[in-house]
Amino acid sequence: MAPIRALSSPFPSPPAALTQDDLKKLAAVKAVENVTSGMVLGLGTGSTAAFVVAEIGALLSSGKLTGIVGVPTSKRTFEQAKCLGIPLSTLDDHPCLDLAIDGADEVDPDLNLVKGRGGALLREKMVEAASNKFVVVVDETKLVTGLGGSGLAMPVEVVQFCWKYNHTRLQEIFKEEGCEAKLRLDADGKPYVSDNSNYIVDLYFKTPIKDAPAAGKEISALEGVVEHGLFLDMASAVIIAGKDGVSIKSK
Amino acid sequence: MAPIRALSSPFPSPPAALTQDDLKKLAAVKAVENVTSGMVLGLGTGSTAAFVVAEIGALLSSGKLTGIVGVPTSKRTFEQAKCLGIPLSTLDDHPCLDLAIDGADEVDPDLNLVKGRGGALLREKMVEAASNKFVVVVDETKLVTGLGGSGLAMPVEVVQFCWKYNHTRLQEIFKEEGCEAKLRLDADGKPYVSDNSNYIVDLYFKTPIKDAPAAGKEISALEGVVEHGLFLDMASAVIIAGKDGVSIKSK
Repeated sequence: MAPIRALSSPFPSPPAALTQDDLKKLAAVKAVENVTSGMVLGLGTGSTAAFVVAEIGALLSSGKLTGIVGVPTSKRTFEQAKCLGIPLSTLDDHPCLDLAIDGADEVDPDLNLVKGRGGALLREKMVEAASNKFVVVVDETKLVTGLGGSGLAMPVEVVQFCWKYNHTRLQEIFKEEGCEAKLRLDADGKPYVSDNSNYIVDLYFKTPIKDAPAAGKEISALEGVVEHGLFLDMASAVIIAGKDGVSIKSK
Repeated sequence: MAPIRALSSPFPSPPAALTQDDLKKLAAVKAVENVTSGMVLGLGTGSTAAFVVAEIGALLSSGKLTGIVGVPTSKRTFEQAKCLGIPLSTLDDHPCLDLAIDGADEVDPDLNLVKGRGGALLREKMVEAASNKFVVVVDETKLVTGLGGSGLAMPVEVVQFCWKYNHTRLQEIFKEEGCEAKLRLDADGKPYVSDNSNYIVDLYFKTPIKDAPAAGKEISALEGVVEHGLFLDMASAVIIAGKDGVSIKSK
């Protein structure tokens, strides 16, 4: 893997009173500086990506950007972008994108990611893998030394058929990492159903995943697994907003 | 791969007037000789597998078999087995099966298979991969020198989202084999929807697939592909009914 360059930011440190949402917005605005008129853009899903979509909408509306086509990664993002008047398309009509911008749940020192806590992992991975450049926007709380290290969910999308069987098999793969697998539930306590009519099994680790590429292959090999939240070797750059300012890590 | 032993059959040649259905039934009855009381059994899907399920039902009903638990690989097979009074379960409750018996669309000299023209490839692969022994029953028209060589469909189950995108990508993988990809339609001309709410893209090859294991990996790596119909290194034995009698190939 190419060495990572950590670039100090020319931006002044934001005042200490900035909230996590302020930081997300700061990173989102910085990421949208990569957008130029005429681009086909992958539009991510989640709270940080929503700031990105809002900023693109504002720039289109003010005429500072023109000729943008957006490819949304979820029904939610589709709705938001549509309301903002962003012209939309799909991978079917635009199989090759110029740039995708999205948030992430975890970022490791090699710019590998955990994504999908918002439930859109499959569409995000499809769109972002089809993009020439993939810029990730996060606040500094998302940085981890190893994937799975936040103690929060690493999602795996599975078909509904015999989900318990795959739930058990997934937990077994990560026995050494003290993994606990839980079926994701919605607010009513019913199984959460993805945009693709599948269930999500969330994996919680006591210690970070030892070998993420090997883990990714092992998860994908399970029949009935549709996609997993390890986004490995995909990000071109990560924009990080923290109390000390905005920094960019790129490959 | 272990060498294949082709065993001549002690059975007399059936009369020439036997139909393809007669041959399928002959192979099915032979396969069910592997079933013993108390087994947890994977029940396949398709016209040949239906003869297997019927035979098991008859043996249970006559008391020659007892204590069988069946794990069906499709809604259709579930219905058939239920009507015959076969006690049923799922992988969730029986994650390890003694034996699965199913048909196949193609069988190559190394006992690798194409399956899933009936649309049940995902559930078949889940159940059959969980079985200690997997016996395949076919009539001799299913034998090919290389997978894809029949010129008939090799199915790939894909999520509905941006299926055209994956349709194009699948065709591209098999450019050298002169592959034509077609979305499977139902009798009304609408996209066929699998038991798992997905679409099926059928691949038709002009020449057999050159490297099936490599092809399997390449297909699986496409985001949005749920499963494919290459069943590689899974069959323990293949029972073949032909005009010259029944033969068994095993590993």
